[in-house]
Amino acid sequence: MDKEKLNSIRHSCAHLLAAAVMELWPDTKRTIGPAIGDGFYYDFDFGDQKISEEDFPKIEAKMAEILKTWAKFEKKEVSVEEAKQFYQDNPYKLELIDEFSKEGQKITFYKSGNYKQSLKPSQSSGFEDLCKGGHSENPQKDIGAFKLLSVAGAYWRGSEKNKMLTRIYGTCFPTQTELDEYLKLQEEAKKKDHRKLGKDLDLFVFSDVVGKGLPLLTEKGTTIRRELERMVVDEELKRGYLHVITPPLAKVDLYKISGHYPYYKDTMYPVMKVDDEELILRPMTCPHHFMLYKSKQRSYKELPIKYAEISPQFRYEKSGELTGLMRVRVFTLSDAHIFTRDTQAKQVIKDVLDLIDYFNKAFGLKKGKDYRYRLSLGERSDEKKYYKDDEAWEKAENILREVLVESKAPFFEAKNEAAFYGPKIDIQLKNVSGKEETAFTVQYDFVMPKRFDLKYIDEEGKEQQPVVIHRASIGALERTMAFLIEKYGGAFPVWLSPIQVMIVPISDQNLKYSQNVLEQLKDSNIRVQIDDKAETMQAKIRNAQLQKIPYMLIIGKREESENKVAVRTREGKDLGAIDLNEFIQKVKSEIESKSSL
Amino acid sequence: MDKEKLNSIRHSCAHLLAAAVMELWPDTKRTIGPAIGDGFYYDFDFGDQKISEEDFPKIEAKMAEILKTWAKFEKKEVSVEEAKQFYQDNPYKLELIDEFSKEGQKITFYKSGNYKQSLKPSQSSGFEDLCKGGHSENPQKDIGAFKLLSVAGAYWRGSEKNKMLTRIYGTCFPTQTELDEYLKLQEEAKKKDHRKLGKDLDLFVFSDVVGKGLPLLTEKGTTIRRELERMVVDEELKRGYLHVITPPLAKVDLYKISGHYPYYKDTMYPVMKVDDEELILRPMTCPHHFMLYKSKQRSYKELPIKYAEISPQFRYEKSGELTGLMRVRVFTLSDAHIFTRDTQAKQVIKDVLDLIDYFNKAFGLKKGKDYRYRLSLGERSDEKKYYKDDEAWEKAENILREVLVESKAPFFEAKNEAAFYGPKIDIQLKNVSGKEETAFTVQYDFVMPKRFDLKYIDEEGKEQQPVVIHRASIGALERTMAFLIEKYGGAFPVWLSPIQVMIVPISDQNLKYSQNVLEQLKDSNIRVQIDDKAETMQAKIRNAQLQKIPYMLIIGKREESENKVAVRTREGKDLGAIDLNEFIQKVKSEIESKSSL
Repeated sequence: MDKEKLNSIRHSCAHLLAAAVMELWPDTKRTIGPAIGDGFYYDFDFGDQKISEEDFPKIEAKMAEILKTWAKFEKKEVSVEEAKQFYQDNPYKLELIDEFSKEGQKITFYKSGNYKQSLKPSQSSGFEDLCKGGHSENPQKDIGAFKLLSVAGAYWRGSEKNKMLTRIYGTCFPTQTELDEYLKLQEEAKKKDHRKLGKDLDLFVFSDVVGKGLPLLTEKGTTIRRELERMVVDEELKRGYLHVITPPLAKVDLYKISGHYPYYKDTMYPVMKVDDEELILRPMTCPHHFMLYKSKQRSYKELPIKYAEISPQFRYEKSGELTGLMRVRVFTLSDAHIFTRDTQAKQVIKDVLDLIDYFNKAFGLKKGKDYRYRLSLGERSDEKKYYKDDEAWEKAENILREVLVESKAPFFEAKNEAAFYGPKIDIQLKNVSGKEETAFTVQYDFVMPKRFDLKYIDEEGKEQQPVVIHRASIGALERTMAFLIEKYGGAFPVWLSPIQVMIVPISDQNLKYSQNVLEQLKDSNIRVQIDDKAETMQAKIRNAQLQKIPYMLIIGKREESENKVAVRTREGKDLGAIDLNEFIQKVKSEIESKSSL
Repeated sequence: MDKEKLNSIRHSCAHLLAAAVMELWPDTKRTIGPAIGDGFYYDFDFGDQKISEEDFPKIEAKMAEILKTWAKFEKKEVSVEEAKQFYQDNPYKLELIDEFSKEGQKITFYKSGNYKQSLKPSQSSGFEDLCKGGHSENPQKDIGAFKLLSVAGAYWRGSEKNKMLTRIYGTCFPTQTELDEYLKLQEEAKKKDHRKLGKDLDLFVFSDVVGKGLPLLTEKGTTIRRELERMVVDEELKRGYLHVITPPLAKVDLYKISGHYPYYKDTMYPVMKVDDEELILRPMTCPHHFMLYKSKQRSYKELPIKYAEISPQFRYEKSGELTGLMRVRVFTLSDAHIFTRDTQAKQVIKDVLDLIDYFNKAFGLKKGKDYRYRLSLGERSDEKKYYKDDEAWEKAENILREVLVESKAPFFEAKNEAAFYGPKIDIQLKNVSGKEETAFTVQYDFVMPKRFDLKYIDEEGKEQQPVVIHRASIGALERTMAFLIEKYGGAFPVWLSPIQVMIVPISDQNLKYSQNVLEQLKDSNIRVQIDDKAETMQAKIRNAQLQKIPYMLIIGKREESENKVAVRTREGKDLGAIDLNEFIQKVKSEIESKSSL
């Protein structure tokens, strides 16, 4: 079902919720109730009445009862006076009516149902509400299944200056099966929340004394991060990127030249004045790479020059926006800036998409299914938002479109989503709840080279200006970690697992051989531990499973005498006794190939 | 010769310099002339007279002439009045005389030589100077060879508020051979200056717009740094360190608890106030690791816990103190904090020294020859400088001493050199000029655990306090890079070389096979390039040698037909035609073993 149709059903269900609430608590003042991402909400002023999730069954029952009478929505145009008369005791609706009438909009009511409703003040038959429309044709038929989800406080019109209302969230689907699926997915997502798993699996912690949005990665979290970082660096080096390291802070002047300073000022940290210098933490790496590019004369023969950096960047996110590792105040971007002739740009961008596909594949993501591309275009008429150079925009957008078409990438186009200095390709990734988000971008920049006066010498000895491609290969490492924690629910593939193998000696008599096995695994660069606590074998296995360690090696007398290991997986599968060397080879090849279990 | 004796000779030579200057420019006002590290200097007020290195031959000739008459120094005690009379026209000496008399010190003059000196104002026979002593017995015999080195401006008593004087630097040795050796070493050191080599070999650059003391590492410099970082991380992981990543900034509160804030305030960056928070860039990693330790309850069974981090740290060095990579404003420490029971501390520290020996060996440093240990002790009576707890100091110092003795480490003891929270072992390393410097330290800390209320649960379920060992394994990566650049003069061992092999095709016809060789080397993780520029083979070889690339592979028709490569070293050695696979194995094993060529 298309999103528009689904939204109309959900908006209809918001009306239904309001109708039920008005029946149950007739003194309630209703306000607005739109469809949102996954469902809908409705904001009410319940007066002194307290509503909680315990009231949901009662409300849902009433909704079901009312729905039987709702075969359609009837639209009615009313005068401002009629509307004000209808809502005479409801200041919220009166405010809306005044606004609509000032803007010259027609005032419309939508009515549904034919039951005799005890609805103050109209006492009309059926449920009638001020509304701009967008409902289902036949709610009774279309609303196959609904469910109220949660209740929360919400200021009228989102402003702290206004009264706090009661917001009831819900969702609905055309069928019960779809609703059940959705609820199951939500339940799964909750279990996979990286903040919960990060704590359970001891991957990272926060400290009030250190500060908000500043995670401390434990040895386990750091192992994952190191694997990611080394994967990126090694693969990029193979592909001809030049990894560099530039300082995490610089003089404010640098960001004034780039234009970041006034533009990103709100999320930049404050200027630090020392002696006669004004320093600031960097919000981006681009200008640093530009200065490195400018440190000597460049020839066309060197191009494309691909500077990459695992780059710490600093943005002061508002405390309300901080979310585990997903949104932090210092993050580490897998950043790169490619200096290229415009004639090479197409191939350069194709290579970038190929690299992104490579990494996504390593994360078990399927192109087309788990992620797709968005071609984000500018808007020629908006000269405030976008740098004015129609010809350059035209050319750049065509190059990006050609790349996507020629490499048969699944993509769609979106207007008015470009960067101020040029169009971009966004990598749209589905998160664990199935929601699509921009994970990172490939940007075509014809503005910064002008600002920084970047040059190269062409075949004829003349100065030319390169184009810069900004790109992230796996985005911010912190955010990617959060994504992967949720994607795998903490059960990482072997190569990413902080501990890959747990050795479980059956008794103390097997400790010596266990130690021997440990050393052999360590020599093969396998991350391994021995559980020599005074607990039962069953408890040790359960504990390793809770830690989501891929393999457990149970070691008893028989294994020792045969130089074998009895292998169990975290899913509880018993792989039986395997020759130690064979097991080592198996794990090594799984690590090498970055394969998922 | 011991340092004290050498200093006395050099101080005598400073007198000699002053005597010569006074003969040549009788109106000069002399001030002070001490022995320093490698020689001596004397500061003069020449009035309007300009002195340059061109005057050195004349001064040196006069010094040699005077020296013939200097068989000894005669000490004479004089009254304040006599002294002031002697120096009536010299405000500098008068200032010193006043100071000495205020402090109740005796005023002493030292005289040497019996020639009739045209010395104003005394017109005495020989050269007489206000001095506290410390001369050679027989300067004529002891000063075997001397040389003036340079001339520089220096404020009287080091204060910008005072007059700028002319400082003449020089050195002297008991024999001409020793002087020649020293001068040769200095010449070498100049050639090996990492700032010069860093530029010549394109390892790092600075940018005025980025800011002072903030180097940008090129791809080549970054390669060296990455090799160092991975070596440290991999070896430390093998030895049971837990590598973690903690944020580079935190709330000021954290450093108030640790006591760093008031103590290190001068070199810390300014506080950043945002919303209701006060954040600051970290000058040290310790408190971050303490918070990680405190994030859960710890048992004696877990100890020692060894947190390590490749940790960016921020100290605002004065611009006059910035020196290439040696002294920067952001550095990356190979840091660690070991939480241990005091009973385990000895073994823990032994292990740390073993790790340091391991890394030093990889850098080709010989224990006893290139580096030794300094046991830096506290001073019980100085309660301002050192935390007061005599018993704890006694115990800690004994542990450190025992470790050094038991592990037969070459060491000496130094009083009043400890940290404020405990004694330490300093690793004293000789730099390229042969000068000994503290490279990094191992500290025993019984104070921070108190401040941060660190605990563990012992065998009896009781809370106990651990001791913390602070240590750096290879110090700051930037400084270590600077040291290694100078040590190797840019000709790094294979494992550290940014480019390990340069392929030189004799003609374009050999390009295809060259490309094939390139791919094979790359597949073996060897850093390799092809020089396909339109230049002669000789020019390409010369160019590779200038870049100090360990190996050049000359590829012609014969090599191609025999699947061989003709190998040359950067030193110009011709290793002849070698089977390609054999060459790959050779380079791989050199990389693996981190051997020097």
